[in-house]
Amino acid sequence: MVVVMRAGATPDQIEHVVSMVKDMGLKEQVIVGTERTVVAVIGDDRQKDSSVFEMVEGVERVVPILAPYKMASSEVKKSRTIIPLLAGSDARIGGRKVGVIAGPCSVESREQIKEIAHAVKEAGAIGLRGGAYKPRTSPYAFQGTGENGLKWLAEAREETGLVVVTEVMATEQIPAVSEYADVLQVGARNMQNFNLLMALGNQPKPVLLKRGLSATLEEFLLAAEYLMKNGNTQVILCERGIRTYEEYVRNTLPLASVPELHRLSHLPVVVDPSHGTGKSHLVQDMCRAAVAAGADGWIVEVHNDPARAWTDGAQSITPDQFAEMMKSIKRIAQAIDRDA
Amino acid sequence: MVVVMRAGATPDQIEHVVSMVKDMGLKEQVIVGTERTVVAVIGDDRQKDSSVFEMVEGVERVVPILAPYKMASSEVKKSRTIIPLLAGSDARIGGRKVGVIAGPCSVESREQIKEIAHAVKEAGAIGLRGGAYKPRTSPYAFQGTGENGLKWLAEAREETGLVVVTEVMATEQIPAVSEYADVLQVGARNMQNFNLLMALGNQPKPVLLKRGLSATLEEFLLAAEYLMKNGNTQVILCERGIRTYEEYVRNTLPLASVPELHRLSHLPVVVDPSHGTGKSHLVQDMCRAAVAAGADGWIVEVHNDPARAWTDGAQSITPDQFAEMMKSIKRIAQAIDRDA
Amino acid sequence: MVVVMRAGATPDQIEHVVSMVKDMGLKEQVIVGTERTVVAVIGDDRQKDSSVFEMVEGVERVVPILAPYKMASSEVKKSRTIIPLLAGSDARIGGRKVGVIAGPCSVESREQIKEIAHAVKEAGAIGLRGGAYKPRTSPYAFQGTGENGLKWLAEAREETGLVVVTEVMATEQIPAVSEYADVLQVGARNMQNFNLLMALGNQPKPVLLKRGLSATLEEFLLAAEYLMKNGNTQVILCERGIRTYEEYVRNTLPLASVPELHRLSHLPVVVDPSHGTGKSHLVQDMCRAAVAAGADGWIVEVHNDPARAWTDGAQSITPDQFAEMMKSIKRIAQAIDRDA
Amino acid sequence: MVVVMRAGATPDQIEHVVSMVKDMGLKEQVIVGTERTVVAVIGDDRQKDSSVFEMVEGVERVVPILAPYKMASSEVKKSRTIIPLLAGSDARIGGRKVGVIAGPCSVESREQIKEIAHAVKEAGAIGLRGGAYKPRTSPYAFQGTGENGLKWLAEAREETGLVVVTEVMATEQIPAVSEYADVLQVGARNMQNFNLLMALGNQPKPVLLKRGLSATLEEFLLAAEYLMKNGNTQVILCERGIRTYEEYVRNTLPLASVPELHRLSHLPVVVDPSHGTGKSHLVQDMCRAAVAAGADGWIVEVHNDPARAWTDGAQSITPDQFAEMMKSIKRIAQAIDRDA
Repeated sequence: MVVVMRAGATPDQIEHVVSMVKDMGLKEQVIVGTERTVVAVIGDDRQKDSSVFEMVEGVERVVPILAPYKMASSEVKKSRTIIPLLAGSDARIGGRKVGVIAGPCSVESREQIKEIAHAVKEAGAIGLRGGAYKPRTSPYAFQGTGENGLKWLAEAREETGLVVVTEVMATEQIPAVSEYADVLQVGARNMQNFNLLMALGNQPKPVLLKRGLSATLEEFLLAAEYLMKNGNTQVILCERGIRTYEEYVRNTLPLASVPELHRLSHLPVVVDPSHGTGKSHLVQDMCRAAVAAGADGWIVEVHNDPARAWTDGAQSITPDQFAEMMKSIKRIAQAIDRDA
Repeated sequence: MVVVMRAGATPDQIEHVVSMVKDMGLKEQVIVGTERTVVAVIGDDRQKDSSVFEMVEGVERVVPILAPYKMASSEVKKSRTIIPLLAGSDARIGGRKVGVIAGPCSVESREQIKEIAHAVKEAGAIGLRGGAYKPRTSPYAFQGTGENGLKWLAEAREETGLVVVTEVMATEQIPAVSEYADVLQVGARNMQNFNLLMALGNQPKPVLLKRGLSATLEEFLLAAEYLMKNGNTQVILCERGIRTYEEYVRNTLPLASVPELHRLSHLPVVVDPSHGTGKSHLVQDMCRAAVAAGADGWIVEVHNDPARAWTDGAQSITPDQFAEMMKSIKRIAQAIDRDA
Repeated sequence: MVVVMRAGATPDQIEHVVSMVKDMGLKEQVIVGTERTVVAVIGDDRQKDSSVFEMVEGVERVVPILAPYKMASSEVKKSRTIIPLLAGSDARIGGRKVGVIAGPCSVESREQIKEIAHAVKEAGAIGLRGGAYKPRTSPYAFQGTGENGLKWLAEAREETGLVVVTEVMATEQIPAVSEYADVLQVGARNMQNFNLLMALGNQPKPVLLKRGLSATLEEFLLAAEYLMKNGNTQVILCERGIRTYEEYVRNTLPLASVPELHRLSHLPVVVDPSHGTGKSHLVQDMCRAAVAAGADGWIVEVHNDPARAWTDGAQSITPDQFAEMMKSIKRIAQAIDRDA
Repeated sequence: MVVVMRAGATPDQIEHVVSMVKDMGLKEQVIVGTERTVVAVIGDDRQKDSSVFEMVEGVERVVPILAPYKMASSEVKKSRTIIPLLAGSDARIGGRKVGVIAGPCSVESREQIKEIAHAVKEAGAIGLRGGAYKPRTSPYAFQGTGENGLKWLAEAREETGLVVVTEVMATEQIPAVSEYADVLQVGARNMQNFNLLMALGNQPKPVLLKRGLSATLEEFLLAAEYLMKNGNTQVILCERGIRTYEEYVRNTLPLASVPELHRLSHLPVVVDPSHGTGKSHLVQDMCRAAVAAGADGWIVEVHNDPARAWTDGAQSITPDQFAEMMKSIKRIAQAIDRDA
């Protein structure tokens, strides 16, 4: 880190900072500028609380230099991570092929999930999404079909070979979800539910980690770091849009995060244009854009009857729209030397 | 809700919307404008997924009319709620007196918490804050003193009479935190941890619910509704700042939320200017402003040695600064016919 | 518009609203719900100040129904607008071909602009960008080469046939800029400089209108409406990123605005990934994504020596990078049945 | 500035940065950390484009150290600036007394402005606001009464002694506005209309500069610097709210900017809670909070008949509400040892 002193900071104040640096077991280098002095701190300060310097008289502010995450960083692991999703299957996220995960917002019935599963499989999906436990903003809203939903997802996998991706909302749900699902999803609202992250770090299945509603990329990668530090390095990052002042979308989808996350981290990145826009008429163009931006995959809500969907109808597309879109997606992937 | 049709929507499309409304068990009224038709939906549509209408051909958008929360709403309960914090004590939040809760970010040691507790008690605080379980952005950061911290807090209460307010991060921590604390705090990152909210709704102690980092007031009140619907109506709303593009603060503190929450809800509202700014040099002015804005209380980080605090040093003020500030706070409270 | 009454609004209050509606020369329809009454206003209320209703006792809020812009709206003109950029040239924005405008942030010298012009022409650009008058955040920063810069741009056009696109910052600059340039650009900071917009509405050359730093799409289209209402319908909308809390980019580039603007308006939409990210290492992926999202063109900063650029070096790419990127852009355009 | 190299940057890359620093006429100091090297740049780099370093291979990012504004900075002028508003009057902004400016959004008629002027004068205002030239989002909205409005404002000054504050939207309006008004206001949408700022820097009357809709404090102070560098040091900063995701307000009012601007700059700071909330029911509490936060004044919209106001009715308060509020304002000012 670099500690920037105020103009006119006294030698005593600078000395105080220097002594604090030494107390932390780190080294310092003092740079006397024409207007300000800065104290550069040398050594691994990731586990130090840099903000304490801001309490010292004469200190203007503190600038961190080192990214606080390690295991998720591309500096630590240079090669890009490829995550196999299911033993005995070639489904994976990362690598040349753009992986597509599709399915309804909520698992509503055995028939519904199977019908959609067959349709998206045929069009080229590798994974089936569908919520059994649903985080809902209102306590009066439908809360999911629970363990029944999980069983129906597993049945759909048996019939189609699709990998099952579903959300786990709480530590106590992990055993049930792990029994039926292949990839465990952490929702945006739980991205900083640290107890849940630690528990998921202690189990072996891949985790699809959604970016929080207003998370920075550093916070996002630190959430991945919670999983990795606890033992689970099979982490898929999912950009799902952020909260901004924009009104025509449910969330603003910032696709530049895709190449930036690829620069900062070795983990694969998928995009969720359904939540990333919240409007079905914008989903298809954003799926195309996500692929062109270099995403390793995307996850999209597909419903056989959106106007009767129990949840998120407004952002779901139909199986026909999905199949049609997959055609152009394949051509875009080829245009940037990938497959879909 | 009101369903706005596109210009040029056909009679069939309008009829489709009308039939969906009837299928929901609600009534409709069709208003034919000069340029557009809108379908007004009559009846309690709070538990309906209004977004499904957006999937119907010819529909432009859907405008909700009824607020989705009930128990938290000032329409349901007209009188303002006053929350007693501890049996046998007159400490409460709500009512004429502005309640002040102060203490360190983290409980670091028995000595630290007792020293601070005595200092803030003397200056006029009614509650003692201090984290034993700490939600930390980085897995490498200090994670709290846990149950020891809880015990030290309880000891400080015995000596000072201050009410103990501390965070509970996960369902499994509720028994331990309930044993020692008087008010259970839900952190901003957990505002939409619905499983935690439901569990806290099932226990009797008051809950201090922090606004999420980018929560709307509607989402905030729906989080309170989760607590209330599950049986716990002792909810204190806490504005702690929101994430914006501003750079000189850790969060932007939008004090207009105080009178607006008072308008929408009967629940008391406190303000946290420590997290709401993240900078100790801004905390005192924002405490004063919060009182002038009508807050029922505030919660502030006070540390006996901020430059050596284990966490959040940069936003802590000293006991002397706290005592000094309390003097002007009392005068401001009187200026708006309240006490502090 | 729809006027939503508070729960418990009195008949007198509702009557007051109704009489205000009639005073405006409009008609009303009162919908009595189970919990609230709403008053629907029938007729063209675009020029009425709807907010006055919010001052009436018993009114909760007002919901606009009609978009306030007309000439820019796709409801008024169904066919997509194609804008020829230069008489006697086939350069245009809109239509099947994706138009590419490239060049340095600032025109620095005759040699610089000509060298870059030849390079981008060869790689497939149709337009040359370059600022002669520069809006700079700091008064101490380089303010542009002014009329000299304009002349050099015109010389580059003579040699290459590229259309010249450059910014006009003030009404008094319009004559000079019009003399040399083919497309007049309104910068993001001037999107709501209404006097400038009205003046540009009174001259015949096409205007490239940049979205303001935190403009809504409605404000953006109303800025276009200022140009169109004053007589100039040759408006190109340019998405250049918005201000959010994100830190790894100069601006967040919300590509969903492209299909949404296409839905709301008949005007063509181009994207500026240079300002939309502010980082050269993100520009190329975002150019690709913009095309896949359906943009009618893009505008990008290209500099022959970015590390020595007088302005915006950090977001400029080199001519070689530009040429390389154009190859994949052409393939992506074909993948969605367009040309580039 | 500090140039942070990537992990693994080569000696050649570091040397390249060093040579660029020297080419700029500045000095460097290289700090070799355990994981990264940083190059500290010594000297006044305010007029250098620091972003060019980001184009150099091996550079991670650049961190500015010096604030780019000078004349507006509290480092250059330690004593707080007090701005007399009118020769021969004791009206001023800055100093112990909190100055109140009140009046309608728009000057609608001679009678209207005089009636309001007398009312606010009686309640304690020192200035009269009112727009004659109105920046309107829609070209179809009322655009102001123009020079007539200016004359009526001047007449109201003659009768009441109130200082006249009104907006100037364009360079060509400066002569007329200067003739009638005492303080020239730059609206939020024009905060970075640099040509207008330069022109206003060349005239002698005080300028009330509104913060842009999404301006950082640095951009805000640089806009002030444009005025000051061109000769006009009589600048009043006005916080009027920023654009965020919040929906219950027209803008989010971040009152922590008041003490922060006081820390960064010697210029006085006033607050506009009318635009800062957009809702009349929030205005009064925010006026009180602004005073408690340390504002040197506030500016508020008062209308004798808000429900019939031509503009901004929803955020206007009545003369009676204004007079009532002034009573508590005076008590709050006294509570922090100021007057109102």
